[in-house]
Amino acid sequence: GTLWSKFKFGSTRKATTGMMGSKKTGLVELWMTDDPSLPMRARVTAFITNAQRNLINAFEEIDPNYKFLLDPWTRASGGNGVSGVLSSARAEPKFAEENPSVLEKAGINISMVHGKMPPSAIAQMKANHSSIPYDPASNASLPYFAGGISIVIHPRNPHAPTIHANYRYFELTSDPKEGEEPETIAWWFGGGSDLTPSYLYEEDAIHFHQALYNACQPSGPSTYPVFKKWCDEYFHLSHRGESRGIGGIFYDDLCNEPHHRMPNAGPGERPNEKEEIFTLMKSCVEAFLPSYLPILKRRMNMPYTEQQRRWQLLRRGRYVEFNLVHDRGTKFGLQTPGIRIESVLMSLPETARWEYRTDLGEEEGTPEAELLATLKSGGIDWLSKAKQEVC
Amino acid sequence: GTLWSKFKFGSTRKATTGMMGSKKTGLVELWMTDDPSLPMRARVTAFITNAQRNLINAFEEIDPNYKFLLDPWTRASGGNGVSGVLSSARAEPKFAEENPSVLEKAGINISMVHGKMPPSAIAQMKANHSSIPYDPASNASLPYFAGGISIVIHPRNPHAPTIHANYRYFELTSDPKEGEEPETIAWWFGGGSDLTPSYLYEEDAIHFHQALYNACQPSGPSTYPVFKKWCDEYFHLSHRGESRGIGGIFYDDLCNEPHHRMPNAGPGERPNEKEEIFTLMKSCVEAFLPSYLPILKRRMNMPYTEQQRRWQLLRRGRYVEFNLVHDRGTKFGLQTPGIRIESVLMSLPETARWEYRTDLGEEEGTPEAELLATLKSGGIDWLSKAKQEVC
Repeated sequence: GTLWSKFKFGSTRKATTGMMGSKKTGLVELWMTDDPSLPMRARVTAFITNAQRNLINAFEEIDPNYKFLLDPWTRASGGNGVSGVLSSARAEPKFAEENPSVLEKAGINISMVHGKMPPSAIAQMKANHSSIPYDPASNASLPYFAGGISIVIHPRNPHAPTIHANYRYFELTSDPKEGEEPETIAWWFGGGSDLTPSYLYEEDAIHFHQALYNACQPSGPSTYPVFKKWCDEYFHLSHRGESRGIGGIFYDDLCNEPHHRMPNAGPGERPNEKEEIFTLMKSCVEAFLPSYLPILKRRMNMPYTEQQRRWQLLRRGRYVEFNLVHDRGTKFGLQTPGIRIESVLMSLPETARWEYRTDLGEEEGTPEAELLATLKSGGIDWLSKAKQEVC
Repeated sequence: GTLWSKFKFGSTRKATTGMMGSKKTGLVELWMTDDPSLPMRARVTAFITNAQRNLINAFEEIDPNYKFLLDPWTRASGGNGVSGVLSSARAEPKFAEENPSVLEKAGINISMVHGKMPPSAIAQMKANHSSIPYDPASNASLPYFAGGISIVIHPRNPHAPTIHANYRYFELTSDPKEGEEPETIAWWFGGGSDLTPSYLYEEDAIHFHQALYNACQPSGPSTYPVFKKWCDEYFHLSHRGESRGIGGIFYDDLCNEPHHRMPNAGPGERPNEKEEIFTLMKSCVEAFLPSYLPILKRRMNMPYTEQQRRWQLLRRGRYVEFNLVHDRGTKFGLQTPGIRIESVLMSLPETARWEYRTDLGEEEGTPEAELLATLKSGGIDWLSKAKQEVC
């Protein structure tokens, strides 16, 4: 249609800010390519498309014997996406055994879906977005767009943590007339990133949170503390009384309306306008590699025992439990007829394990028990910990 | 209390019907110990307690190097249970490697819980049990009892199927006066058993269904066909469009009222009275070993490849998905505050696996593809298949 043809993939305009990305491919030029004259859905699509390629390049440098499978798909009722998957299960078993991948399973995916939002769903959205100019009595459906990038990296080494991130943009529009752009009548951004170690290295947790703090801080002092707390609340396995990991950031429904988690944040204390909130999204996505690669690199070649591997697989069982039982996105996906199930469940680890009343983690003073104690603590202020250590 | 002290565990009365069970232990005598003068909750408790021990004995004969851990528990708000678990993860790693267990993970559990049912839950129950003499306006809670046996066996060999069974009795009572028995004001039985192979052996599927047919048939011709269809409907992963396995039987809310799945079943066509429905439960529990052991014994020592093991673990991933996403009992457990999470999740396999768009099962004509085709067929009439083969 009109809208999609305006996308400037492969634009030759130079990036205004240099960033990481593979020198081999020259994709660094595209990383920050952005044309503010385009509608936001097109800018988000261009940004996540290039982010996906740069992230895949970076992880292929870490894992030079393996390639991500790029798996594009289209959705019958509107939209498309590209799944990017690294799995050593796809390699010849002998090769995989002799050349174990650093990443046991990794997915770096983008999706841009659109369709018609039914009246009941619009009514629910009005709870968080009171300005939506919609009369429930009209009983009309409205076009929506949702575009996002989703990342899950499960390294093989038990000392290297799993990381997850997801950043997305959502909008409701008017029904466009033939040949015209639809009018945006509501929009918001959401996202977050969190780290799930099997063994706790305080320096890793501090590094990760510091990188997220650095990414959020330019958007206002209310961002990181609010998003950090939200993350601790969201990634919680209530049936275990455990956090999934050591947290990170999480936010949703960010738009130019008052936000229920930042009711008193004045100008400059939070991002208020669309451009500012997109800047926050870009900053967070760009922080992904700096937040994680230094940790992965210092853990990925550490020696480990069979027992440590077993503990890691038990922790991956918890990861499966969170995703199948609690995660809103997964639950929504599983309930949606005709959804692409392989994409919905790509976040699951290659292997997970459940033991009845395992002895691992039971013995006080062990690293396994130390992790459990942290996960049961309800959330730790890692940045204060960093300051304490400096003093 | 009064009720529980009447239990006749270890009664010296002879069983009226001889059954399987370990000759070593003499527990065969207890298998059918039953005192019809006791309240049904006590009879069910005695039956499942002895069934648990006989089943554990039978599987320890299959796996002579391993013992089930008997793990008794009590529930703060009322009731108790005994989990019986075999897991080679509890053995010394070197011993386990040199003496791999036949059963990778097995749970044979009983629970007898009681408490107060809140008015909202009673109101829901009245939907299926219209005779409950309860006035919602009274806003009163009522005492309940739920007793059952739950079995999940995950063998190690990919050619040997996983089996699951659960049989339970539920009742609502009046608030008993001091020193008196409570009056039962509503009761019902539920249960079922289903088989989940990684590789399809038609003779196994036919044997399993034949054994369940034999167990149900004395209770009336309406039982097996109705329970078989119900099982196919219940153990279905809607998000995959697949059955969990090759089915079995499933029933619930069986009592002396009309049943919505057997509306036209006259006298003799279904079990109508409490004694008849308890007989059905006993018959089904007693059919567990005959339905499964012959299959396990002919598959447990078959040679297998790494790829077959990988396929088994992928199928176990589906098992995890069913239990965490669809199974009503597990979902109820996960949402219940203070529940014993280790018991709720004991049904999960020791190891499970997820691959993005795995190649296994994709190639037509392979045993993996053959299983998938069966699971996507929506349910097969195995007993007609058996008859066709005889003709």
